Amino acid sequence: MRDRFHEQLQQLSEALITMGALCEEAISDAAKSYFTGDRRLGERAGQLEQQIDQQQRDIESLCMQLLLRQQPVARDLRTISASMRMISDMERIGDQAADIAEIARDVQAGKLADETPMGDMARTAISMVTDSVDAFVREDLDLAHQVIARDDRVDQLFLNMRKQLANMIGRGEDASACLDMLMIAKYFERIGDHACNIAQWVEYALTGQYEDD
Amino acid sequence: MRDRFHEQLQQLSEALITMGALCEEAISDAAKSYFTGDRRLGERAGQLEQQIDQQQRDIESLCMQLLLRQQPVARDLRTISASMRMISDMERIGDQAADIAEIARDVQAGKLADETPMGDMARTAISMVTDSVDAFVREDLDLAHQVIARDDRVDQLFLNMRKQLANMIGRGEDASACLDMLMIAKYFERIGDHACNIAQWVEYALTGQYEDD
Repeated sequence: MRDRFHEQLQQLSEALITMGALCEEAISDAAKSYFTGDRRLGERAGQLEQQIDQQQRDIESLCMQLLLRQQPVARDLRTISASMRMISDMERIGDQAADIAEIARDVQAGKLADETPMGDMARTAISMVTDSVDAFVREDLDLAHQVIARDDRVDQLFLNMRKQLANMIGRGEDASACLDMLMIAKYFERIGDHACNIAQWVEYALTGQYEDD
Repeated sequence: MRDRFHEQLQQLSEALITMGALCEEAISDAAKSYFTGDRRLGERAGQLEQQIDQQQRDIESLCMQLLLRQQPVARDLRTISASMRMISDMERIGDQAADIAEIARDVQAGKLADETPMGDMARTAISMVTDSVDAFVREDLDLAHQVIARDDRVDQLFLNMRKQLANMIGRGEDASACLDMLMIAKYFERIGDHACNIAQWVEYALTGQYEDD
């Protein structure tokens, strides 16, 4: 019984790593499709989003089985309940990657984007997702804290982006392109929020402490 | 043991109704603070968001207890697993209400908003939240389907809003105000998405069928 339990916990851990990798790929493809105009990458982000949704359902069902059949306690219980929250954030990251890819289908980052912190936002958000998943895999509390700290930076970049876009519109740049950029920037900011949540759930699984932001 | 179980299921149902009511209040206060400029309502939306977060933690803990101690099956298990998903969507609705209130702290809907479908978006999103919670309370599958169908309408209103804002900026209206309106409209659209998710979880709890959108 206990052996089967630890086998299933291991299976849960591997499934989370797979889901995290799918998220990283989806957001990276979506960002590249926006910056390079490569539509195939955008389509792939959309397909990855569906795989992420399926992975969420599979992991949820595994967590339910573990809860119902094994009645875990202490750290094992925390791992399972943190996992159920993490997959909810990962699923949203997949949604947001697909949202970015959808806008990128119609518009591509032109020279305008170079004037804004968009590239910086994309890189920071992607690094937060990668590091939050790594923090989980390596049970690395320091790395989780670094991700949480980086969230302020993405929030600040979004505010800068908003100001910059208002200025650009003010001097007559294409309003429609600027509105799209605002939406894409908002998605990157949200992805940062979700990566931050994942890092907070890693902290909770490891320490039992949960710090809400 | 079974009596205690049904008592706790009843407690879960009441806690969800309370959380739903807090969400309705938060989004309604946030919308009013934006349309009327009443800052106290905005502050209240922020306080309600914190109550919603607390309510989520309480309900989650109750669900965990029910899963671990009672090992529910069939419809009871579906009710508990649907509840855990519903509170995640309700929590996001609280976040988005607080986000709207935060923008409304600095800017208020001026005459510009009358030219846009913003009022319509707010009303539709609020009605979707109210009806999704009612569908849960009354176990009303028809009402849940109505909420799901209404999501297309909010999505369409958001697209209209975006076009309208690009036109308004084009004729020289304040770009900064228009960017804020786009963000608020996006929050209403997201609230519609979450209400739609809640309605889908109601359907799942009642029928065992889950239709992803």
